[in-house]
Amino acid sequence: MEENDVREKIYESITSKDTAALNNLFENMEAIDFAQAAEDLEDEDLRQVFEMLSKDNQTALMEEADDELRLRLAKTIDNDSLLTLFSHMQKDDIVDILGDFPTGRRKEVLNLMKSGDRKIITDLLQYPEESAGGLMSTAYLALNEDLTVTEGIQKIHEIGPKTEVIETIYVTDRQHRLTGTLDLRDLLSSPGAEKIVNIMHGNVIFVTPEVDQEEVAKLVSRYDLNAIPVVSARKQLLGIVTVDDVIDVIIQEHDEDMLQLAGVSSEERLNTSLGQSVRFRLPWLLVNLATAFLASFTVKLFESTINQVVALSAIMTIVSGMGGNAGTQTMSVLVRELSKNKITGAEAAKGLFKELLLGLIDGAVNGVVTGIIVYWVYGNLYLGVIVFIAMIGNMLVAGIFGFLVPLMLDKIHADPAVASSIFVTTATDVLGFFIFLGLANIFLPLLLGA
Amino acid sequence: MEENDVREKIYESITSKDTAALNNLFENMEAIDFAQAAEDLEDEDLRQVFEMLSKDNQTALMEEADDELRLRLAKTIDNDSLLTLFSHMQKDDIVDILGDFPTGRRKEVLNLMKSGDRKIITDLLQYPEESAGGLMSTAYLALNEDLTVTEGIQKIHEIGPKTEVIETIYVTDRQHRLTGTLDLRDLLSSPGAEKIVNIMHGNVIFVTPEVDQEEVAKLVSRYDLNAIPVVSARKQLLGIVTVDDVIDVIIQEHDEDMLQLAGVSSEERLNTSLGQSVRFRLPWLLVNLATAFLASFTVKLFESTINQVVALSAIMTIVSGMGGNAGTQTMSVLVRELSKNKITGAEAAKGLFKELLLGLIDGAVNGVVTGIIVYWVYGNLYLGVIVFIAMIGNMLVAGIFGFLVPLMLDKIHADPAVASSIFVTTATDVLGFFIFLGLANIFLPLLLGA
Repeated sequence: MEENDVREKIYESITSKDTAALNNLFENMEAIDFAQAAEDLEDEDLRQVFEMLSKDNQTALMEEADDELRLRLAKTIDNDSLLTLFSHMQKDDIVDILGDFPTGRRKEVLNLMKSGDRKIITDLLQYPEESAGGLMSTAYLALNEDLTVTEGIQKIHEIGPKTEVIETIYVTDRQHRLTGTLDLRDLLSSPGAEKIVNIMHGNVIFVTPEVDQEEVAKLVSRYDLNAIPVVSARKQLLGIVTVDDVIDVIIQEHDEDMLQLAGVSSEERLNTSLGQSVRFRLPWLLVNLATAFLASFTVKLFESTINQVVALSAIMTIVSGMGGNAGTQTMSVLVRELSKNKITGAEAAKGLFKELLLGLIDGAVNGVVTGIIVYWVYGNLYLGVIVFIAMIGNMLVAGIFGFLVPLMLDKIHADPAVASSIFVTTATDVLGFFIFLGLANIFLPLLLGA
Repeated sequence: MEENDVREKIYESITSKDTAALNNLFENMEAIDFAQAAEDLEDEDLRQVFEMLSKDNQTALMEEADDELRLRLAKTIDNDSLLTLFSHMQKDDIVDILGDFPTGRRKEVLNLMKSGDRKIITDLLQYPEESAGGLMSTAYLALNEDLTVTEGIQKIHEIGPKTEVIETIYVTDRQHRLTGTLDLRDLLSSPGAEKIVNIMHGNVIFVTPEVDQEEVAKLVSRYDLNAIPVVSARKQLLGIVTVDDVIDVIIQEHDEDMLQLAGVSSEERLNTSLGQSVRFRLPWLLVNLATAFLASFTVKLFESTINQVVALSAIMTIVSGMGGNAGTQTMSVLVRELSKNKITGAEAAKGLFKELLLGLIDGAVNGVVTGIIVYWVYGNLYLGVIVFIAMIGNMLVAGIFGFLVPLMLDKIHADPAVASSIFVTTATDVLGFFIFLGLANIFLPLLLGA
């Protein structure tokens, strides 16, 4: 069913106040699809929809809604209804919602909670949203290592339905410290009297709550985990980060990389307001304007040369532009490599040497083509030779800066994916103009005499 | 333990032929970490390591090795040992390995297999590597819908240990057609005599084998699945794609997007050979060279204007460069949006209108700054005014092309992430030069008279 059709049906049922039809619609589709269709409803319609849904469906909708929709939904209902709803929800989802609330209402709602819940939620609220602590769920399945297999299975019957993952069971000691993990398959196939401590795996990969979400995602994907446990400094189990949240992190980081590379905020959407878009994009453009002036003043240095051979002004843009393209290529390979592995000094030396050879080869090929066309168009052999040499020179610049800029940014712990581009293209613009126009200036008598 | 330390220990144990130490090392670390340390071993050392490992550890190493290492390992052993190893491995891993084999050896190995296995493997080999069929595993857990809960649990005890996922159980009818899924929690908490058909979920999200891996990843991440079933045209269950493979797909597609945007092959690594790098990068540079000449010839059209006001040659690069930056911003937002949602005609119209306003505002701000600096540096008011107008003009060009190019590429089913960039920057270069130099040409008397 298309999103528009869903919305159509939603309108029908709120207009006719057909509660059964609306709940029926909800239950016969995936909650995430319903949530996405509901995003475009006006506030008043959204309020009605939510009111008409059953408690179970309200909870399911809340869980699948994105941050913005959750906040809108939460605003439509009073604190008492919100608390009833929360009582059906996972703690980490409640934390996400409260985290987006204005401070005033957050305090109000927290104060209305039972003190046990309030403590858990307040603790969770302290972790940054993009850390392991901010991502984790407390709905994990943990068994004491001293239990027998039969006791363990009995426990799972009781608490299993409330947990996010049951395939992996976490094993703790009496101080609730994580001591191992247990594969549900092993539990099911072991003799009933066996102690859990004897069938668990002792080597557990875990994180502490302050670990950045990107690092969490790396571990989960590297070790093919369903979930990764989050433990305190004293190794007490605090929660788990599940693989579905990790996928969201990976996609989010991907989007950020792509957009930041282009100087756009990762928050910008097609429907971001005009004012917001201006605030997101203008600063980056002004930074680029500064670098554009750098390149422009380089050209200005050679005004008298250009004045004598005006063809230079058309040809110089080829040299600078091609350097930018080649530099971006080198930079991209480096940025990817840095995101996967550490680069040793020896690898760096070898890599840079290769980039220089590559610059020589790519520069020579592009330089020959450009030189021939320039000679043919302008009828000046020296102009062709100069552009050939300048092209090689600027491709060497591209290789050096494309290689070293990401490496140095990584060394000083800046994100090479974000900042490399502007330094590399500034170098290839400024030095590209400088090399080409400088050569033209030196060989000016030859250019004029030909 | 660092990778180098692991390699050190590996060397120690092969030099001293200490089989126990090597296997001990393997079992006390994650297989993927061992595999990555083994990647840098010479062929002969690798052969020795593999020979010294126990069958179980050989299998674990094979499963975690990347494509290249797997192939190297497989080459070190003869067909009989390979078949013994295969008998411990998942079918989809065997297919991955055989898929990389030269045709000759693949046929040899296939012919040595039992005919049942050969049929399964041959069938799996037919799916493209980057499709649901190429990714799927046949180690799923399926139960007939007519079984009772007790019978189902019994079955899971038998086949559970051999499956990749047990949290989600697939339910089939007598013709092995997929009719539902079953949460293991529900199975464990239901009365023993209940039929499975009565406790399963009927709405299943599935794919057919030819579906592209990117689509598979989208569904798994959207619906938070552990695995997605792959079914034939007649809905018979063929296999499942598990979430860990989906994460690999998402990361791979991410890398491809980033690198293709820069005109680099997604296969290029830091240690790619020089010749290979030239083959990867040179074609893209030559395509860009063609577009660079387009821009260059645009400048050439105005040679006589530049000849009279040489300052134009330095200033024109600012206008073209800033247009490129603004166009890349717009394009990036669009490309991201297209990767998530369909854009309706109304949304497109509204979005384009916003981009035009944005171009006006960003162009005006950058234009004023540029105009003032130009006036101050060159002392020519008309030059300042012309660059102000040209900047707005080129930012409008950036908005229009940055918006429409990805949209049109998506319409003709080309990948907007890959191809947009070159069209957009060509437009902002060519039209940026044209607008600025064209205006200068029209108002030449004013420029000269001032």
